[in-house]
Amino acid sequence: MDKDTFQNITPWEAQVNTDNKTVSINYNKIISQFGCKSYTKDLTRKLEEFSKSTAHFYFSRNIVFAHRDFDILLEKMKNKKIYLYTGRGPSSESMHLGHVIPFQLCKYFQDTFKCPLVIQLTDDEKFLFKNQSLEESMKYCKENMKDIIAFGFDPDLTYIFSNVASAHLFEKNVLKISKSITLNEACKVFGFDMNSNIGMINFPSKEIAPCYASSFDFLQKGSMCLIPCAVDQDPYFRLARDKANILKEPKPTTLYVSLLPDLKGVNKKMSASDNTSSIFLTDTPAKIAKKIKKYAYSGGKETLEEHRLLGGDTSIDIPYQYLRYFHTDSSELERIKEEYEKGNMSSGEIKNICIEVIQRFVKEYQERRKNVTDEVLDNFCKKL
Amino acid sequence: MDKDTFQNITPWEAQVNTDNKTVSINYNKIISQFGCKSYTKDLTRKLEEFSKSTAHFYFSRNIVFAHRDFDILLEKMKNKKIYLYTGRGPSSESMHLGHVIPFQLCKYFQDTFKCPLVIQLTDDEKFLFKNQSLEESMKYCKENMKDIIAFGFDPDLTYIFSNVASAHLFEKNVLKISKSITLNEACKVFGFDMNSNIGMINFPSKEIAPCYASSFDFLQKGSMCLIPCAVDQDPYFRLARDKANILKEPKPTTLYVSLLPDLKGVNKKMSASDNTSSIFLTDTPAKIAKKIKKYAYSGGKETLEEHRLLGGDTSIDIPYQYLRYFHTDSSELERIKEEYEKGNMSSGEIKNICIEVIQRFVKEYQERRKNVTDEVLDNFCKKL
Repeated sequence: MDKDTFQNITPWEAQVNTDNKTVSINYNKIISQFGCKSYTKDLTRKLEEFSKSTAHFYFSRNIVFAHRDFDILLEKMKNKKIYLYTGRGPSSESMHLGHVIPFQLCKYFQDTFKCPLVIQLTDDEKFLFKNQSLEESMKYCKENMKDIIAFGFDPDLTYIFSNVASAHLFEKNVLKISKSITLNEACKVFGFDMNSNIGMINFPSKEIAPCYASSFDFLQKGSMCLIPCAVDQDPYFRLARDKANILKEPKPTTLYVSLLPDLKGVNKKMSASDNTSSIFLTDTPAKIAKKIKKYAYSGGKETLEEHRLLGGDTSIDIPYQYLRYFHTDSSELERIKEEYEKGNMSSGEIKNICIEVIQRFVKEYQERRKNVTDEVLDNFCKKL
Repeated sequence: MDKDTFQNITPWEAQVNTDNKTVSINYNKIISQFGCKSYTKDLTRKLEEFSKSTAHFYFSRNIVFAHRDFDILLEKMKNKKIYLYTGRGPSSESMHLGHVIPFQLCKYFQDTFKCPLVIQLTDDEKFLFKNQSLEESMKYCKENMKDIIAFGFDPDLTYIFSNVASAHLFEKNVLKISKSITLNEACKVFGFDMNSNIGMINFPSKEIAPCYASSFDFLQKGSMCLIPCAVDQDPYFRLARDKANILKEPKPTTLYVSLLPDLKGVNKKMSASDNTSSIFLTDTPAKIAKKIKKYAYSGGKETLEEHRLLGGDTSIDIPYQYLRYFHTDSSELERIKEEYEKGNMSSGEIKNICIEVIQRFVKEYQERRKNVTDEVLDNFCKKL
């Protein structure tokens, strides 16, 4: 049995079953387990050709690593409208750096193609699946909506909603989807058992509904759905695609980003439940610096002598990994990689670069976040 | 094994498992299976004392035959507000005589105590459980709402709603209830299995939610819920009572009416799916007469001579049974029973009385139904 055989990637958990911090999540295995396709450079070429602009750096850095039918979508986009769909489960903690990636990808698509974006806040899910009251879920939901708006979406093209507060908007499609999924299927796909509560069992219909343009009056009929999201959400969209024919809906297209790793190692995704494993969008510059210095797992060698001789391992080095996700200058990133792997750059030095890049990103974000008032929020909750 | 051992009484089926039309549904068995209490005359005495009026004839004729905590409700009513809750699953066919009973009982309570009444139309249920499109369910729902209003409810005290159209109104309580019920419980109580769809599994939360006054803003906080309904709905309310403590809600009280039998025999409840087994509220006088003459199972004897000698059996005689539910004059009903059992009254004669009583009831109903316009309906759908 190879060392990475066990890895749990579900909507509620994403980690390799080992404490070995040098064993990273195996994305090729996810692709073959889930049955989606590897993202290829050829797709980026087509995307850039069609958009007449340079694609986001997530594409060239393999952060966008898998998809379902993105090739077909690119073909059809010449004649058909698309809309974007993504989401967020509002849990007690503030949003962290790992949550940023799908939203940034959505922003790239919205900016490039001026397309509508639907953002679902699954306050119901967090209540049903976690030890969290409904009132807490709804409170966090409102804050998280503002957090999301601060990524800079276009208020005229973005519709953000809470499942609890807006259940009626897409109830009809939720019912049609529910009727099409047997308990047996739901248990197989999501691992429910006899101890699961009955709200959990029916929840997938709610995450699936926005995959179909018919769920929302304000979307153009027959619009194609593109879902940029973290790969752990694939089970929902696999099922949405399986059921599309029977529901007479077009199959949604997905684009999967890899999971930003935990501060302490590449074997886990960043999780809000551990404060020392995550960098939050509310963290101060000092806190960011301290967390990276103290907790970020280093791919450098034990001693500086050894490091100078053998170089660092960027594939398991958390500061380098974060730079992959957040450094906007690809040639500078390439230079850092080379210098670090050669041993010319020390662990301390790469950590300092990482600190600077993350601090700048979070500072700019926090400035935008300040301006998201209740009034701004209301603007985004209205129908398009 | 006694001959009536097998009887299926579930929200979706109510019959004795035999074709023998002289074996009626055993209500004592339902009481012991379901764990509710027999209705006693003593309760009627208390009800009449408190209301300072004669109770509806359903009470004296044992049509109201079982309850949960109605005795406790009667005690508490001196100090606390009550509200009524009942419902209807809108299926393709018009409403029939069997559907009338719980609504008439609600009307008695509303008229007597001037209390609010909440009526849930489970258009979602009919879609999820039957081979019926959502669009059909919603169309029938609107017609059935009007059918119900025609029973003569007070527009100022009655709130009638569709689950599909008004999902958002009580979504929060639906979620809280869903979280409190495990898949295991739902399967045990409702008989779901791995082939059930996931909407069915979660549906009970929707029928349970209106049992708690907190589901609706317009109900006075802490109001006690009284549910007059057919006994086959007990599984929902048993569960609503089981979960009340954990949800910090008062337990709802129930009052169960027996099921109006099928035209063809006392071994089944009247069902809309067979046109020759049911009398619809849309039937013409001629159709009513024809159905009763042709299909109503008679408890009379084979020959008139034998009948004059031995008398009829009212316990299995459908015309007599319908008179129990619809004849408003109890002493006249008593006289009919005596004459028929003695053999002085023939099968043909009791059928004629039944035809006349049902024709009159349906005619008066149809006159009220004509006046229920879209505008009247809107009035009832508004919040109290």
